[in-house]
Amino acid sequence: MGLLIVGSIGLDNIETPFDKIEGALGGSTTYISLAASYFTGPVSIVGVVGDDFSQDHIKMLEDHNIDHEGLQIVEGGKTFRYGCRYHYDLNTRDSLFTDLNVFESFNPIIPDKDKKASFVILGNIAPSLQTTVLDQLENPKFIVCDTMNFWINGALEDLKKVLKRVNVLIINDSEARLLSKEPNLIKAAKIISDMGPKYLIIKKGEHGALLFGENQIFSAPAYPMENIFDPTGAGDAFAGGFTGYLHKNMELSFENMKRAVIYGSIMASFCVEKFSTKGLENLSFLEIKNRFIEFRDLSTFD
Amino acid sequence: MGLLIVGSIGLDNIETPFDKIEGALGGSTTYISLAASYFTGPVSIVGVVGDDFSQDHIKMLEDHNIDHEGLQIVEGGKTFRYGCRYHYDLNTRDSLFTDLNVFESFNPIIPDKDKKASFVILGNIAPSLQTTVLDQLENPKFIVCDTMNFWINGALEDLKKVLKRVNVLIINDSEARLLSKEPNLIKAAKIISDMGPKYLIIKKGEHGALLFGENQIFSAPAYPMENIFDPTGAGDAFAGGFTGYLHKNMELSFENMKRAVIYGSIMASFCVEKFSTKGLENLSFLEIKNRFIEFRDLSTFD
Repeated sequence: MGLLIVGSIGLDNIETPFDKIEGALGGSTTYISLAASYFTGPVSIVGVVGDDFSQDHIKMLEDHNIDHEGLQIVEGGKTFRYGCRYHYDLNTRDSLFTDLNVFESFNPIIPDKDKKASFVILGNIAPSLQTTVLDQLENPKFIVCDTMNFWINGALEDLKKVLKRVNVLIINDSEARLLSKEPNLIKAAKIISDMGPKYLIIKKGEHGALLFGENQIFSAPAYPMENIFDPTGAGDAFAGGFTGYLHKNMELSFENMKRAVIYGSIMASFCVEKFSTKGLENLSFLEIKNRFIEFRDLSTFD
Repeated sequence: MGLLIVGSIGLDNIETPFDKIEGALGGSTTYISLAASYFTGPVSIVGVVGDDFSQDHIKMLEDHNIDHEGLQIVEGGKTFRYGCRYHYDLNTRDSLFTDLNVFESFNPIIPDKDKKASFVILGNIAPSLQTTVLDQLENPKFIVCDTMNFWINGALEDLKKVLKRVNVLIINDSEARLLSKEPNLIKAAKIISDMGPKYLIIKKGEHGALLFGENQIFSAPAYPMENIFDPTGAGDAFAGGFTGYLHKNMELSFENMKRAVIYGSIMASFCVEKFSTKGLENLSFLEIKNRFIEFRDLSTFD
């Protein structure tokens, strides 16, 4: 009854107005699994890297109780590499290069033991690959899906097939508007919910997140961040915190999903405080709990 | 110990994707006073109109217990007229015309009885006029100020003088960034607070509002609106609801200001549901109270 995570694993060159880093650990699977690891475990990952992938990275994942039996290491292949430069306000970035390398022919093969996973997070990969993953699973109870504008524009029919099979879709506000063709987010949420997912989370960056489901809406505040060092992976950290928390206590009520959205927001806030995955590598339970209280203080009134 | 409101009064031509209206009652004073009237009273207004201003409008204000002794009616003059067209997403608008008319030479003269006002709302007028208002008051206890990008760009030194004298500044997120020259809103809030106001409210439209003060932050959700018919006056309705609630119970703690921010958000949400001031003309206490509960349900988690 484990938690399975499938997505990309890569090495990133990141430039922000404050600093730059080369060959840093990245990819959706990495951020998602690290964030989830603070709530439940072991989590299993499926992905692909080349033989240039450092044993230090694998060791770091192991230290977080992340099961990497499903990690394919291609001999003679190179790991997916991505470079980007963030603008002054950190809300937008330019892609500098995208070398798919071994990720180009990624064929997710789920280890037998992980086919029984009860919770699955489909990271941001081609919808056809997300379908391949779902087809291998025996009886998943709760499927969380991420996607992006690239697939909404380029693989909409494939994506719509996936959406019919997932429980939760997590996207950002511009992706929600693009997918629904509707500028009003409340109307957009209804249109997207009609595509399949029982729950929809719309992430709004500095403005927090909205959870839609069961004819209810929950508005989560954003953590007040003065110093965002690297926005990379924030959305993945959100998905990992959200799903990890739900997997831990297995309660899928709307009330508990609200808490999960807060834990997702917490992990995203830790993620962006440091470069690459560093913000997710050394957290304590107390730090996470204290930030939960900060979120409550931020939004409570009576 | 009344509530005094000084700002513009005008007649608006408004086009939205849904409808259009000509010569409708508008102006910051109008929206602010109507919104405040549901919480406290009587409220006093100071403004200027021409003799083309309809007695029906004055009757409507009187019906809301709005004291208009300070309303100057210029014989032979024409009321301020403004026309605008909203875009498809209702977030942006084009100004079609601005005929200042009698508003061009507006000199706010505060009636003697209103010089003792304990609460004052300075609507969005020239900072030099806001100063003229403050100079006439005997001992105001609580001053709430609105402004806009036009004055930030064109009358910054005058505005800074006003900010040193006010308790609360209410602006939107783009104005906060412009005034502070800082894209991060949390940092921007600190910069603006250093200019004078003890409390700062940053309105974020569909993303809610932030209250800063006493080294605390409160994040208020936005009411989920599927159908916004006319955004005109939303910010003024916010200021009126916020200040009217505080004037009613005279408790200026941060906890009570949080509630006031919610009541401001509630009045803004009613405002945009109908054209012109119609959404603020016939509300019941129960409607307002029920929407307060909806706001709580929207943002509460434990």
